[in-house]
Amino acid sequence: MNPASVTSQNFRAIDVIRKKRDGGELSRQEIESLVNAYTRDDIPDYQVSAWLMAVVLRGMSRAETAALTDAMLRSGEVLDLSSLRASKVDKHSTGGVGDKTSLVLAPLAAAAGVTVPMISGRGLGHTGGTLDKLEAIPGFNVNLPVTQFRRVLEACGCCMIGQTAEIAPADRKLYALRDVTGTVESPYLICASIMSKKLAEGIDALVLDVKTGSGAFMKNEKDAAFLAELMVETGERMGKKVVALITDMDQPLGNMIGNALEVVEVIDILHGRGPEDLRRLCLELAGWMLYLGGVAINVAEGKKRSEQLIASGEALQRFRQMVELQGGDVRAIDDPKRLPQSEHTMKVSAPRGGYVASLQCEQIGTACVVLGGGRERKEDSVDPAVGIVLHKKVGDSIALGEPLATIHYNSEDRATRAHELIQASYRISDSANPEKRQLIHRVIGIAQENN
Amino acid sequence: MNPASVTSQNFRAIDVIRKKRDGGELSRQEIESLVNAYTRDDIPDYQVSAWLMAVVLRGMSRAETAALTDAMLRSGEVLDLSSLRASKVDKHSTGGVGDKTSLVLAPLAAAAGVTVPMISGRGLGHTGGTLDKLEAIPGFNVNLPVTQFRRVLEACGCCMIGQTAEIAPADRKLYALRDVTGTVESPYLICASIMSKKLAEGIDALVLDVKTGSGAFMKNEKDAAFLAELMVETGERMGKKVVALITDMDQPLGNMIGNALEVVEVIDILHGRGPEDLRRLCLELAGWMLYLGGVAINVAEGKKRSEQLIASGEALQRFRQMVELQGGDVRAIDDPKRLPQSEHTMKVSAPRGGYVASLQCEQIGTACVVLGGGRERKEDSVDPAVGIVLHKKVGDSIALGEPLATIHYNSEDRATRAHELIQASYRISDSANPEKRQLIHRVIGIAQENN
Repeated sequence: MNPASVTSQNFRAIDVIRKKRDGGELSRQEIESLVNAYTRDDIPDYQVSAWLMAVVLRGMSRAETAALTDAMLRSGEVLDLSSLRASKVDKHSTGGVGDKTSLVLAPLAAAAGVTVPMISGRGLGHTGGTLDKLEAIPGFNVNLPVTQFRRVLEACGCCMIGQTAEIAPADRKLYALRDVTGTVESPYLICASIMSKKLAEGIDALVLDVKTGSGAFMKNEKDAAFLAELMVETGERMGKKVVALITDMDQPLGNMIGNALEVVEVIDILHGRGPEDLRRLCLELAGWMLYLGGVAINVAEGKKRSEQLIASGEALQRFRQMVELQGGDVRAIDDPKRLPQSEHTMKVSAPRGGYVASLQCEQIGTACVVLGGGRERKEDSVDPAVGIVLHKKVGDSIALGEPLATIHYNSEDRATRAHELIQASYRISDSANPEKRQLIHRVIGIAQENN
Repeated sequence: MNPASVTSQNFRAIDVIRKKRDGGELSRQEIESLVNAYTRDDIPDYQVSAWLMAVVLRGMSRAETAALTDAMLRSGEVLDLSSLRASKVDKHSTGGVGDKTSLVLAPLAAAAGVTVPMISGRGLGHTGGTLDKLEAIPGFNVNLPVTQFRRVLEACGCCMIGQTAEIAPADRKLYALRDVTGTVESPYLICASIMSKKLAEGIDALVLDVKTGSGAFMKNEKDAAFLAELMVETGERMGKKVVALITDMDQPLGNMIGNALEVVEVIDILHGRGPEDLRRLCLELAGWMLYLGGVAINVAEGKKRSEQLIASGEALQRFRQMVELQGGDVRAIDDPKRLPQSEHTMKVSAPRGGYVASLQCEQIGTACVVLGGGRERKEDSVDPAVGIVLHKKVGDSIALGEPLATIHYNSEDRATRAHELIQASYRISDSANPEKRQLIHRVIGIAQENN
C-alpha cells in the first residue's frame, strides 16, 4: 500500500499523543498515519518524542506493537527473495560481549541448504557489532547494493551486509530520535525496531538470541523473556516462524573480545576447535535455524547436521566463499596471523588465588571500547586489532599472579585503563561456586516437543 | 543569579529525561539547567517534549515543582515594585465562562489601598480572557511597556496589561511546546506556568480562584483542590502569601458572556447592581485581597470595606481612572451603549416548561466562540460585540416558549449554530432541584479563623 493512501486526511498527531498519554490503545490506522507522516517529515520530532515517551511509560498492546512493526517495515523496501528456492532464515542477537555467533551461523546454515540474508549493525557502547567484526577481515565489504547482495546469496547461500537506506527508513529516523530522548528502553519499541528490520529482509523464519545477564541490555531474565515473547508474537502475527532463546550473557561468550580476535575465534570454531560455550551456543542456534528452515526434522537433528558440516570442513569452506564474494582477503582466513594484529600485549594477573566466582561482563565490554575496539559514540571509528583474550572464566581455579587475561593494545594509556577495568571485573572467591548459570536459559515460541 | 552560572558544565539533557522517566526526583540544579538551556535554545524541542511527557506521567515532588517555578520565573525579568509603598496583591483565575471578576477586583482593591499589578492572558477555547474583555473598551491599551505600567500603578493603584516579552520567557517557550505535544494537562506544569508569571509581577500576595465544574479545566473538585494546594505550597515556598478559593464553574458566572457584554456587567457590578453570584464572588475575592494586602484585619472586614467602596462609587471611579490612563474611552464606561454592539439579536426559547436543572457550561462558552467572541486557535481574532445574555440559570422556573437566553450576533450562520448549542446546554426538569451547588466550595491555604 502507498504510505500516503493510509494517512487519513484527518490525522492529527496531537490526538494520537493524547490517546497514548491517557493509556488508550491506538488503532492500526493511527499508528500507520503517525509512522508515515514522520517518515515523510510531515510531523516534527518534538511531537514524536512526546509520543515515544508516552509509549515508554504507558506501554503498548500486542496489536499495537505488531501494527508499529508493520508500519515501520513498510516505510521502506521489503526484499523480495522469492526467486531463491531455499527457505530464508536469519538469526538476531540482542547484543553482548564476545558474541560472534553470526559469523559462524551464516555459513554453517548456508552449508546445510538454508539461505541466510543477514543484515547486521555496528557496535555501540559495551557491545560489539557484526559489521565491525567482518571489517576486521582485510577487504571485506559490508556495503553491497541489493542487487549484489542477491547475487552473493544465490552463489553461496549467505551474505552479510549493513542496513541499506531503503530498508525501514522509519526505524532509522525513530532510532536516532529515541537515542537522544531517553526513549530507547522500551520492550515495545525495541521489538518494533528489531522485527521491522529483520522482516524487511524477506525471510521466512527467524531465530532470536535474547541475552540476559551482566553484559546484556536486559540484565534480568524476566525482562529478557518479556521482550522475547513480544518479538515472537509480533513475528507470528506477521506470518513468520519465530523462536527466541534466552541465553546467558553474565560473562563474555567465548574467550576473545575485539574485532580481529573474534574472527580468529570464529575460524577456530569452524575448524572444530574453540571454546566450549561458544561452540555449544552456535550448534544450538544452528539447530534451530536448520529446523525452522525445513532442512532438519527437529532441532536435535539440526544440531547433529551442523556438527557434521563443521567436522567435514564444509562450513569453513562456505565462510571462505562468502568472504571471497564480498571482497575479503581469504588468505587471512587460511592464516589468521594475516588479520590485523596489535603492536603490544599485556597480561592481567590474578591479585589472589582461588576460583573465578563471577565476571562483570559489561565492564569487560567497556574495557574493549576503552582500548579502541568499540564505540562510545556512533561517529567513532574502531581499531580492529585491539581486544582482550580471557584465560579464566567463571568456575576456573586460579593461582596468585597467574594471568586472568591478555590485553592486545596499541596505546599504553588505554591499556592501563583497560587493565584496571578487567582486573576489577573478576571476582575471585575461596571455594568453587557450586551453582553455575545455564548457557541456555529458556526457549520461547515453538513447541518444545520438536527439540 | 546569571542563568549561565547555574548551568553545570556537565549538564546533559538526556540524563535528566531518563531520571524523570524512571520516576526519580530531579535536583534544583538539574531543573534550573534544563530550563536555562532551553530558554537559550541550547537544547532542542524534541528533548524537552520527551521530558515534559515524562513529567505528565511521572509527576513531580513539591520541591521539584517549586524549583521549576523558580527557574521559569528567573528566566526573565522580575518586576521590582518595591518603590510602591502599598502592598502588591494580584488575583488569578484558572479560567471559566463569564468570569469577569478581574475587571471588578483590580479597581476595587486599588480603591481600598492595595496595589494590583495585573498581567493577564487572552481567551482560548471555551474560556474568555481578560485582555479581550478590556480591549472591548474603545482605545484601551493592554500593551504598555514596563515603565508606563509602573506609572499607571503609581497613579491609580492598578494596571492591567498583557504578558511582556521580558516576563518568564521560559514559560512562553514551554507553553507553546506543551500546546502541540499533549503535555498541557499536568497540575505540576500548570502550577509552574501560572505561578512563574504571577510571581514575576513582583507581588507580595496572591489570591487564586481555582474553578471546578462543567465549564472549568478541572471538571472535578478533587483535581481542582490538588492544583490549588500545589500552587499555594509553591507560592509559600517562595515566600509569598497565597490563598486559593475553589469556586463553582458548573454554570457561567453572571449572566453575560462575550467581551463587550461582560464589560457592561462589570460596570453594573461597580454600580452596585448586577447578578448576585458575580457580586458575591467579587466581594469574597476582594475580601481576601484586602486581607492579604494588609488593609483589612480579616476577610469579613475586607468584604465589608469592598461593599462600601462600591456603594460610594469609589471603585467605579477607580475603574474609570484606570481606563483613562490606559487610553480607553471613558464615555463608554459612563454610557455602556457606546461599547461595541452586535447588529442583531435572537432569542433562545425554552422547548418545555419546568425548572433549569443544569447548564452545560463549557458548551455555552463554545457557543460564544462560535459567534466569533472567542478563539479556537491562538491566531484567531475576536469580535468584541457578540455574545450571549442568559435570562435563566440553574434553579430558575421557566414556561414553555419563554426566553432562556438572547444571542448577540453579526452572522446568521454562526447564530444558528450557537442557538443549537445553547438550547442543548439547558437541562429542564419538572421539579426544582433541591440541591444547589455552592458558589465557593473550599478555601485552601490560609488559616480559616481569619475568615
